[in-house]
Amino acid sequence: MTTATVLGLGQMGHALAAALTRSHHPTTVWNRTSGKAHDLDVTVASTPAEAVSASPLVIVCLPDYEVVRTVLDPLPLSGSTVVNVSGGSPEQAREIDAWAAEKGIDYIDGVIVATPEVIGSPAAALYYSGRRDAYETHRSTLAAFGENAIHLGDDVGMASAFDASLQSMLWTSMSGVVHMFALASAENISAQDIAGSAKTMLALFPDMIDLLAEQVDAGRFPADGASIAATAAVLDHILSTLHSNGLDDGVLRAVRADLHQAIEAGHGSEGFGRLSTLAAR
Amino acid sequence: MTTATVLGLGQMGHALAAALTRSHHPTTVWNRTSGKAHDLDVTVASTPAEAVSASPLVIVCLPDYEVVRTVLDPLPLSGSTVVNVSGGSPEQAREIDAWAAEKGIDYIDGVIVATPEVIGSPAAALYYSGRRDAYETHRSTLAAFGENAIHLGDDVGMASAFDASLQSMLWTSMSGVVHMFALASAENISAQDIAGSAKTMLALFPDMIDLLAEQVDAGRFPADGASIAATAAVLDHILSTLHSNGLDDGVLRAVRADLHQAIEAGHGSEGFGRLSTLAAR
Ligand SMILES: NC(=O)c1ccc[n+]([C@@H]2O[C@H](COP(=O)([O-])OP(=O)(O)OC[C@H]3O[C@@H](n4cnc5c(N)ncnc54)[C@H](OP(=O)(O)O)[C@@H]3O)[C@@H](O)[C@H]2O)c1
Ligand SMILES: NC(=O)c1ccc[n+]([C@@H]2O[C@H](COP(=O)([O-])OP(=O)(O)OC[C@H]3O[C@@H](n4cnc5c(N)ncnc54)[C@H](OP(=O)(O)O)[C@@H]3O)[C@@H](O)[C@H]2O)c1
Repeated sequence: MTTATVLGLGQMGHALAAALTRSHHPTTVWNRTSGKAHDLDVTVASTPAEAVSASPLVIVCLPDYEVVRTVLDPLPLSGSTVVNVSGGSPEQAREIDAWAAEKGIDYIDGVIVATPEVIGSPAAALYYSGRRDAYETHRSTLAAFGENAIHLGDDVGMASAFDASLQSMLWTSMSGVVHMFALASAENISAQDIAGSAKTMLALFPDMIDLLAEQVDAGRFPADGASIAATAAVLDHILSTLHSNGLDDGVLRAVRADLHQAIEAGHGSEGFGRLSTLAAR
Repeated sequence: MTTATVLGLGQMGHALAAALTRSHHPTTVWNRTSGKAHDLDVTVASTPAEAVSASPLVIVCLPDYEVVRTVLDPLPLSGSTVVNVSGGSPEQAREIDAWAAEKGIDYIDGVIVATPEVIGSPAAALYYSGRRDAYETHRSTLAAFGENAIHLGDDVGMASAFDASLQSMLWTSMSGVVHMFALASAENISAQDIAGSAKTMLALFPDMIDLLAEQVDAGRFPADGASIAATAAVLDHILSTLHSNGLDDGVLRAVRADLHQAIEAGHGSEGFGRLSTLAAR
């Protein structure tokens, strides 16, 4: 079994180290504060330098990229593969990758979409990007964190961009859900009553996402259902209902502004997917 | 079989009249322009007054509430039940209901969530509100439009409010989807690649909607997963990624503004569902 090192034994780092030992990888760990590994079957290094010397594969799980750089900078990592699963942006991933290249380090950026409890199970989604050869070398070891892992490409920023894209969809949709409840509640409709119809409506999303994905990749946006102009008119009705209830309308106004930007650019008779091509105003 | 009258034979009105005849209801129709009923087994009235005299149940399907008022105002409708399925706001429904009450008309407001092609099938969702007794009297006739029908309550604005709440959720979520594709595409991730993960993420929404519905009805919003403050931090990361790609950030900034409003109001450690209680800024 290949050996691995984990730097950072916070909630997530601890779960990663535990998953490695469950998959029988001899594991060395380091954490700033001692005592975090007492329940793990691992070798505890007293310095990060000692930890990274123990394995060719170094997993880094620290709060952010600044801490990552501070911890990694003085270490003898030339020839090692560093897999950094700390949260950051595509830009930060590209910066640290440039630094790693100078030092002769194979750098892979990772994103974990999971809580620590589900690490190692199919419920954990893991995205990686950066040198594919280095990823392939360590793929079977990284599989300890979960089989549901994708290598997105050689561009090291892709994992973080993938995550940011999904999270942006997630929280925008969540905002749609809470505003739905807000308006329903203002109109004395119980949340339970509207939840059923909301779920029926969301059941159409998988097909809609596939359709939009095809349109985006093809760069063509026919209005199969409602056109952008028709949707803008629907939003005007909803906004007036929000206003008569004194409800917050910021998100929907922003959606409406996107539609009007598209209409002004001559796309009013196309489908909603056209909005995916709009850049900053 | 009970008789019914349809005013307005546009795309939707035509589909409604066709559904009534398929269910063997003797149907009388009127349309401003003649010739729209040539393919229907109906009685064509030459004036709206003649049409409404033919049946106790009058279905109205016209472009908006202004046209509805103009058409209905001079008609002998006292004692009739008017079911208006034209698109409008809860306020407009309440206005027309007050007018109808004065005239001795039983008014029911309806919303059709369907394209004309699926009228009569389970794919058509229909919401009604207004006097329950009048609805119950005509329920079996209205079932011709689709069995998937709900009477939401006696408050005549509820059907339209229900629809506006769902549509607001729909288009906000759709905005989340197209912005996801926009960011992915800017980072050279194909739409097909991210669509699969997006569908996996959306598969969690039914449970999340049920959980949020319980929280909204109970008025308590524990942070099970991420707190509002943690989500605000996530959005800051995404926003910086949008900015470095020169992408439109209006919708996400509006979502972020809602989160910060909640934080300022002391709800930072609660769950996202708390946002459903925020009124206008
Ligand atoms: N938890 C999750 O659900 C989750 C999910 C996905 C991704 N992540 C990512 O995983 C990373 C770690 O998160 P976590 O939840 O494990 O955080 P955490 O429980 O707060 O742990 C933070 C870790 O970083 C160490 N640390 C903090 N500042 C340091 C410094 N200046 N020098 C050296 N070590 C330092 C801490 O060491 P001490 O023990 O000495 O304080 C601890 O090991 C984050 O980037 C997060 O985005 C977490
Ligand atoms: N189509 C859908 O998918 C759909 C879905 C849900 C709800 N709806 C609702 O259904 C309603 C009708 O939509 P639609 O798609 O059937 O529209 P449409 O095809 O454009 O038909 C409009 C109808 O209204 C009549 N009309 C227009 N102005 C009039 C006036 N001033 N006086 C008298 N009659 C007038 C038209 O008569 P002429 O033939 O003489 O022009 C025609 O019968 C709308 O409120 C819409 O929101 C439609």
